[in-house]
Amino acid sequence: MDETTRIALLARVLGDGAPAAGVEVGIGDDAAVLEAPRPGSRLVWTIDEQVEGVHFRRELLAWRDVGWRSFMAAASDVAAMGASPWCALCAMVLPGDVDGAVLREIALGQREAADAVRAPVVGGNLSRGPAVSLATTLLGTCERAVERRGAEPGDGVWLAGRVGLAAAGFAALARAREGGREARGAQAATDAMPPALCEAVDAWRRPRALVAEGRAMGAVARAAVDVSDGLARDAGHLAEASGVRVVLDESALRSDAALIAAAGALGADPLELALHGGEDYALVAASRAPIPGFRRIGEVREGRGLALRDGAGERSIEPRGFDHFAT
Amino acid sequence: MDETTRIALLARVLGDGAPAAGVEVGIGDDAAVLEAPRPGSRLVWTIDEQVEGVHFRRELLAWRDVGWRSFMAAASDVAAMGASPWCALCAMVLPGDVDGAVLREIALGQREAADAVRAPVVGGNLSRGPAVSLATTLLGTCERAVERRGAEPGDGVWLAGRVGLAAAGFAALARAREGGREARGAQAATDAMPPALCEAVDAWRRPRALVAEGRAMGAVARAAVDVSDGLARDAGHLAEASGVRVVLDESALRSDAALIAAAGALGADPLELALHGGEDYALVAASRAPIPGFRRIGEVREGRGLALRDGAGERSIEPRGFDHFAT
Repeated sequence: MDETTRIALLARVLGDGAPAAGVEVGIGDDAAVLEAPRPGSRLVWTIDEQVEGVHFRRELLAWRDVGWRSFMAAASDVAAMGASPWCALCAMVLPGDVDGAVLREIALGQREAADAVRAPVVGGNLSRGPAVSLATTLLGTCERAVERRGAEPGDGVWLAGRVGLAAAGFAALARAREGGREARGAQAATDAMPPALCEAVDAWRRPRALVAEGRAMGAVARAAVDVSDGLARDAGHLAEASGVRVVLDESALRSDAALIAAAGALGADPLELALHGGEDYALVAASRAPIPGFRRIGEVREGRGLALRDGAGERSIEPRGFDHFAT
Repeated sequence: MDETTRIALLARVLGDGAPAAGVEVGIGDDAAVLEAPRPGSRLVWTIDEQVEGVHFRRELLAWRDVGWRSFMAAASDVAAMGASPWCALCAMVLPGDVDGAVLREIALGQREAADAVRAPVVGGNLSRGPAVSLATTLLGTCERAVERRGAEPGDGVWLAGRVGLAAAGFAALARAREGGREARGAQAATDAMPPALCEAVDAWRRPRALVAEGRAMGAVARAAVDVSDGLARDAGHLAEASGVRVVLDESALRSDAALIAAAGALGADPLELALHGGEDYALVAASRAPIPGFRRIGEVREGRGLALRDGAGERSIEPRGFDHFAT
């Protein structure tokens, strides 16, 4: 299958359907053309890239999930700024052994994710390379963008979505794989799992960018970040950018029944998963007022760094989330 | 060097300097934030990715050239729509053996290119991976975007920049490499080359997106494309999208003295290089009126496909430019 045929396949899967508002030229030209959004609004713009062997392994994910996750990771960045996804470009690097059927599955996953957040793919790029790599750039719009900086002492720390569950799902899949059960394709690995782990696996395979929660947050939050690399690491980014100390309540991080059940099935500590497990794409915000769809998990104080408190007192915690180049 | 240190290095090299007009949040947050451009204007948006072993080889290019070329390839797409580059996001995939010094050189090349087209890097993404891969997404603005479709019979075909010279430069470098001369770094391979080939090598190492020419074209051209994969292939895209036949003048494609000299030094046919050599990032436009900075190289006719004419007559030509997945 040559490049032209592949591009035609992608255009059919990704470009089919009604054009999005404001999109004048979509897939098939040198670049996409968009109408300028309403005066006074903000464009929020991100790029994320997911690489085979680093962000995913073929034996743990269906190709459709690979496409979905790569798109959602970018959509989550836009949600974390309080913006609504508008449209996307997807650049794919594919080894020669990725055939048309696989390409179609990847594109279908991207398309499902694009439909879920209502941000169609309007262009992209296709290249050969040594491993599958999917770069997604997404534009969103909002009236007011919520940055990482801006949290103030006295603000509450608020969480939308879950933390730790995706990491539990990844661990469960990796163990099933080590145990010899073939995890590729749909259900082979999860059939033998307890329901608590199936929910966790689903959280890892099919994360959802919290777009509605992000929009709700945009009206009131002073600062926000999405949790891609672990709560401790990402809340630490917010603390550092804002020049404040973030203190998390241990009890609030131990209250998710699904996480407790999954951790129990794995023999893991739910608090460890909640603090250091990534890829849930939850949102963390600092706000004086409650935010619809969020629950309170701590508070902002004067100082620096990140801490955890329980009935007995408070202790500093160090981020241990994912680092691409940790030595 | 861990991820945080690498990102700090990139922020210093890429983010230093006055912020661009309309950029409210640059490097360091979940996403960049931009002011909506002037009402009625168009956003032109592209993504391009350059992969080690496919678009470049470490032994033929300095890392700074790798950064420059990857940025210019994206900028050329924006120029080809008649738009002015505004700002960019760069996603890098790096193997573990790419150290801080190399990363700095890549970023310096991106920065030089960004400065040359006045479109600062306002964010990006960093990931580990099996080979160096640089994805650049660029936003541009214009009053009116020039698409590939729209050429009409009777239009002239106009060219800005050169075609074939970069391919001659690549061939010269590859031969020097085979001949045992070490081409990595600055000048080792080109020192022994005749001047005609040095100019060609420079065309391949340091292409320039034709931004001013693209803007001039925006006012008058009916259709346009940039030449990344070879004139025959890309002019063929324009013909196909417009539903017309493009007829190129052989004499016009044989008139570039630099190309004739380089082809002579290589023992190659300048016409072959001009038709099928890629990576010059010239612009081809269809226009009734002359376009400042362009020269006429043919005409648009009724029909389909691509042809070459000389004093003796006209013959159809097939594209043979670069295909990532040609079998």
